[in-house]
Amino acid sequence: MENLLSERIKSTPSSFIRNIFKTVSDPEIISFAGGLPNPISFPSEELKISSQRIIDKYKGKVFQYSTTPGLIELRQVIAERYNKKFNLNLEIENIIITTGSQQALDLISKVTLNKDDGVIVEKPTFLGALQVFSQYQPKFRSVTLKDDGLDIQELKMAVLEKNKMMYTIPDFQNPTGLSYSKENKKAIVDVIKDKEFVLIEDDPYGELRFEDEHEPYMGLSCMKYGVVLGSFSKTITPGMRLGYIISYNKELLNKISLAKEASDLHTNIFSQYLIYDYLINNDLDEHIAKIRKLYKAQADAMICAMEKYFPKEVTFTRPKGGMFLWVTLPKHVNALSIFEKAVQNKVTFVPGDPFFVDDIQRNTLRLNYTNADSNTIEEGIKRLGKLLYEVI
Amino acid sequence: MENLLSERIKSTPSSFIRNIFKTVSDPEIISFAGGLPNPISFPSEELKISSQRIIDKYKGKVFQYSTTPGLIELRQVIAERYNKKFNLNLEIENIIITTGSQQALDLISKVTLNKDDGVIVEKPTFLGALQVFSQYQPKFRSVTLKDDGLDIQELKMAVLEKNKMMYTIPDFQNPTGLSYSKENKKAIVDVIKDKEFVLIEDDPYGELRFEDEHEPYMGLSCMKYGVVLGSFSKTITPGMRLGYIISYNKELLNKISLAKEASDLHTNIFSQYLIYDYLINNDLDEHIAKIRKLYKAQADAMICAMEKYFPKEVTFTRPKGGMFLWVTLPKHVNALSIFEKAVQNKVTFVPGDPFFVDDIQRNTLRLNYTNADSNTIEEGIKRLGKLLYEVI
Repeated sequence: MENLLSERIKSTPSSFIRNIFKTVSDPEIISFAGGLPNPISFPSEELKISSQRIIDKYKGKVFQYSTTPGLIELRQVIAERYNKKFNLNLEIENIIITTGSQQALDLISKVTLNKDDGVIVEKPTFLGALQVFSQYQPKFRSVTLKDDGLDIQELKMAVLEKNKMMYTIPDFQNPTGLSYSKENKKAIVDVIKDKEFVLIEDDPYGELRFEDEHEPYMGLSCMKYGVVLGSFSKTITPGMRLGYIISYNKELLNKISLAKEASDLHTNIFSQYLIYDYLINNDLDEHIAKIRKLYKAQADAMICAMEKYFPKEVTFTRPKGGMFLWVTLPKHVNALSIFEKAVQNKVTFVPGDPFFVDDIQRNTLRLNYTNADSNTIEEGIKRLGKLLYEVI
Repeated sequence: MENLLSERIKSTPSSFIRNIFKTVSDPEIISFAGGLPNPISFPSEELKISSQRIIDKYKGKVFQYSTTPGLIELRQVIAERYNKKFNLNLEIENIIITTGSQQALDLISKVTLNKDDGVIVEKPTFLGALQVFSQYQPKFRSVTLKDDGLDIQELKMAVLEKNKMMYTIPDFQNPTGLSYSKENKKAIVDVIKDKEFVLIEDDPYGELRFEDEHEPYMGLSCMKYGVVLGSFSKTITPGMRLGYIISYNKELLNKISLAKEASDLHTNIFSQYLIYDYLINNDLDEHIAKIRKLYKAQADAMICAMEKYFPKEVTFTRPKGGMFLWVTLPKHVNALSIFEKAVQNKVTFVPGDPFFVDDIQRNTLRLNYTNADSNTIEEGIKRLGKLLYEVI
């Protein structure tokens, strides 16, 4: 089949995580590998009411073809929410609904990347982003993510080259759980503000904060091609695949819309009405407050258990929000090589490897704490700790 | 912004039809331009019941992340339906759920096409397909579509070159409403059966037949890379964006699944459960029988009105199913040039231009008959006929 395939698909790595999903189905395994929201956080009853109401109210419209950029009423509600929260002045035309944030990354790549174009990424960064970018065969330039944000010296070096895109997750980053500090964001803006590449601030976790307020976005107002990605996946439901792209640059959004038209015509309109109806009839902030409380308790349970059961040579991040934390083992321990033993011990995680484009730190791993209760988390960390004592 | 854009997006034409949708919102205009199913064909009450039932029955699963190839139960039902209808032996693994057929075309292109790779298309063909293929900058090779199918001599010439893909709509083609005869399908198979390109048989309209039975597919069983595309858009609801790819070649499907993972992770799982629940609790064939009757009456109304109101120099196809028919004006009349006058006369259509990659027949136009009742159709054709008498 080699002759049939595009260079593009040959360059696309398959996802470690989704391969795990396929192979690991033993219900006794405690999984810290995925990135699933806790199902108890889904507002099922409210969505059930909304699903009735929209069929009665909007009739055939919820089942018919629709326009590519998305339901106007939903885009209006999103614009108002961001305007209020971040003191912006977004209009409907500043927002495009996408089939999840993953599609947003694909569309922006489609619109901008030729082969070998530069893409600046965090080291480490979200493996799903690396996967979607890889389809377009770019040249990755990685910038180390430190405890308080990007390494500014490395960033200065990276922007010396020509780039088309810079991909960041400034809040509760996936995989590390780290956030950019206010000062770091300011320093980044100083370096990149005049650059003519797309700055993506991917913000699926920003609402899931255990403390503090959300800092303003870096590029939205001050970069020519500043883009923010948002999603309802972590606050309402991921199964609906509803994300959105925000930008003041309508010319760029028009091109993204053209790419979307060719890619899937439009995002599921039933779900757009459903989420819209949910948003105007319920208090999303009240709902999010519950999720925050839930996830903070689970994060605390994980950290507490790691302090109790992990060897003292093992370090880890202490996220102030989001869904993940990042574990660093002693240099000589390869996380990938102990993965199979972990599965035998009925616990899983994601080894650090797939989150790097270079300088792979093989002694790292990602843990997710959102999809298990505190007791299960303690038991899983206990199993993992036992294994770590064996290999360290 | 030119410097930022990919060559890919610069090669992608914007859709004439969707531009029309944007500009024409006058409710007094009778539109034969779109390709919308009639909203009275949506099984709204049944889908309302299903939407409640799936939330009660499957709970969090309908809102959670899911697997890339799609809901196993739904794929099973699709496999069984095709096995029964076409005497096939498809398994779950032979089917991938896509975010509409449009995404299926995008994914297959992503997986196969490098720049300048050959793609064989009908002349004329579906403009949405030309749009999605154009993103990958292929070399189009067009083969004339005649009353009974493809021109075999032209096809023989087209396959002399190296191609990666051949795109066909053998039943009730968009835009012409024409179908390939049994003999034509056989002749095509004789020409292409040993070729190592992907044969796409796009079949969104096959169920909407006013008479006869569906002929077997050409490439599914006898070509190495035979692919059939199906969709629930024309039989249940297009708003859910639910299509599917069928192929016996699991190696190809694995690559398509990898591309889908990078493109949107998976298709809306709520809708997959919804359509699955609808299918196992209702008789789809009974529902389709109603749609057939409705569309046949509307097609008859349009043909009858054209015979009455169109100048005798104008010819048109008489489809035995589907949603469209194709009008040929005298050679000297340019359909695009009378479009604006038509809008002033409160009737719209799609000029033939965007359906061609070469040898544009500017004296052609496409009419849709599914989204208006018979009286409205007669009035619209009357308006169009009046205009045609003026310009001929």
